[in-house]
Amino acid sequence: MKVDLNEAQRLAVGFLVRHGMLDAHAHVVADHLVYASLAGHGFAGLSRLLPIAEYLKKRGPGGTVRTIHETDKSALIDGDNVIGYVTSLMGVDKAIELARTSGVGIVGVNNSWFSGMLRYYVERAADAGFIALHAANSTARVAPYGGIDRLLGTNPIAFAFPAEKHPLVIDLATASMAWGDVIYHQQTGKPLPEERAIDGDGRPTTDPLAALGGAFLPWGGPRGSSLSVIVQALGILAGSDPVIDDAGKWGYFFAVIDPALLLAPEGFKRSITTLRDRIEASRPSDPARPVRVPGSSSRQNIEVGRARGWIEVADEVYDAVR
Amino acid sequence: MKVDLNEAQRLAVGFLVRHGMLDAHAHVVADHLVYASLAGHGFAGLSRLLPIAEYLKKRGPGGTVRTIHETDKSALIDGDNVIGYVTSLMGVDKAIELARTSGVGIVGVNNSWFSGMLRYYVERAADAGFIALHAANSTARVAPYGGIDRLLGTNPIAFAFPAEKHPLVIDLATASMAWGDVIYHQQTGKPLPEERAIDGDGRPTTDPLAALGGAFLPWGGPRGSSLSVIVQALGILAGSDPVIDDAGKWGYFFAVIDPALLLAPEGFKRSITTLRDRIEASRPSDPARPVRVPGSSSRQNIEVGRARGWIEVADEVYDAVR
Repeated sequence: MKVDLNEAQRLAVGFLVRHGMLDAHAHVVADHLVYASLAGHGFAGLSRLLPIAEYLKKRGPGGTVRTIHETDKSALIDGDNVIGYVTSLMGVDKAIELARTSGVGIVGVNNSWFSGMLRYYVERAADAGFIALHAANSTARVAPYGGIDRLLGTNPIAFAFPAEKHPLVIDLATASMAWGDVIYHQQTGKPLPEERAIDGDGRPTTDPLAALGGAFLPWGGPRGSSLSVIVQALGILAGSDPVIDDAGKWGYFFAVIDPALLLAPEGFKRSITTLRDRIEASRPSDPARPVRVPGSSSRQNIEVGRARGWIEVADEVYDAVR
Repeated sequence: MKVDLNEAQRLAVGFLVRHGMLDAHAHVVADHLVYASLAGHGFAGLSRLLPIAEYLKKRGPGGTVRTIHETDKSALIDGDNVIGYVTSLMGVDKAIELARTSGVGIVGVNNSWFSGMLRYYVERAADAGFIALHAANSTARVAPYGGIDRLLGTNPIAFAFPAEKHPLVIDLATASMAWGDVIYHQQTGKPLPEERAIDGDGRPTTDPLAALGGAFLPWGGPRGSSLSVIVQALGILAGSDPVIDDAGKWGYFFAVIDPALLLAPEGFKRSITTLRDRIEASRPSDPARPVRVPGSSSRQNIEVGRARGWIEVADEVYDAVR
């Protein structure tokens, strides 16, 4: 059903507060979930409220987020079990603040869970004129290429670059499926697509529960698996466990860089804009499908959706949340 | 044929100096080509001497490498048309030096060409105890996903993380083929594999010359193409052109980070080692093929080859170089 943006926000805040979340945190999470719904990522949108409620029941709302180590260009933040939507926003804002004063901000956040779409955080840095790299590891769900044991998180990585009009934002998952997508399939009783998961004995499965007990496959064969290992290692630098079991520590890594360290920022923005324009003006392989730069459809969905003023929410999610 | 390592080095240096390269630069290049041969990358090894000679004829040996902008944590280096094997080594060494004093080194190198295997540079930083990210763009050879115009370089990206015994080094190409590999197919008169390239009109081709006149396809569909755009943008930050035509400016980007900015370095190295050990001890999908961490076969090839004392060089390459 169609839900007005303000109502969706109110609904989400109310639901989260009823489940024990601080009001200020609930606003941050709700804002992100509406953004994800607008972007067109159903399972990262309002339906994420249900697994969040389960986590809140299991782990509680968390305590006080603290910076435990800091230099003029870096900070390590202990999330004290507060939800990742909140700690990641604090993490990227800290990295932006450090980059403003010293050109670079390197920030790690750990001891936190669920942080949604990575583009939300890096876009914020690029809107402020900075280049951002963000990588997030999480509970081991994915087998490395050639293996059948779950050792890696679903491990997304994102970059953003400032440009004219709007930044170039690229958000990339390294697993063949998102965890939230598997949960969504489980909730709605649908089988997974073929060749995305194996059960505990390494046999192919399309059963969401068997996949959660076994492993998801990495995206992109050996190279995609390599990228997942890179994200895993960056998460370790942010203070995660090396391999994250169900009660383990996740890591969110942020690097925010002022382009002025190397180039005149306006010239850099112009060059990124030129790259984007050249890609979007290039000849498509299918004349009916213009070539798009990565991230542009999410951005466009968000713009169109904000102007429209409502998001689509699955009826069962709406009912459960109300 | 088998060529002794010292002879291979001497042969390469002699060849390069006869083609106008400075003796000091020729030693750097020869060292890298022997390393690449040892790693098992035929087309990045001694056979690369032939296209290097062509480039030297066309572009000359270059002038004086200069740092044109510098801060306490960054440097922009104009390669003045000197070969990339030399300027990238200077780039990563500069980034390491900056990271030693200020925790982070962000370095861009441009106006340079051919830099070989990215792992060579990031491994050097990780051997010194640092985390490294290195991305290199180059002449437009690759069409973005959904397009048929060549706009992106073959755009490799590499990361290295310090660990116990030896670092974790991950080197990833974002094109379905390396340029050197296509040249190698052209030199040896072999067709390209299917579905790797298109001609100037966007039609599939296995003809190396048609691929060089048309475009290589990106690796990994939309996500692989996204990663290539990220590398392109990082190269732009290093001072490259937005889209690099045949006479255009390439960019090499280096970020070197001291793990001590966030964690105790020994603990970080231990965790990366644990991740590696857990992956290599995990159950393989094929019992005959143990799970490997990315980069481990290159590393092992190099170790075994050094102990053995020789590399395999194609007869026609040996004859041409002598």
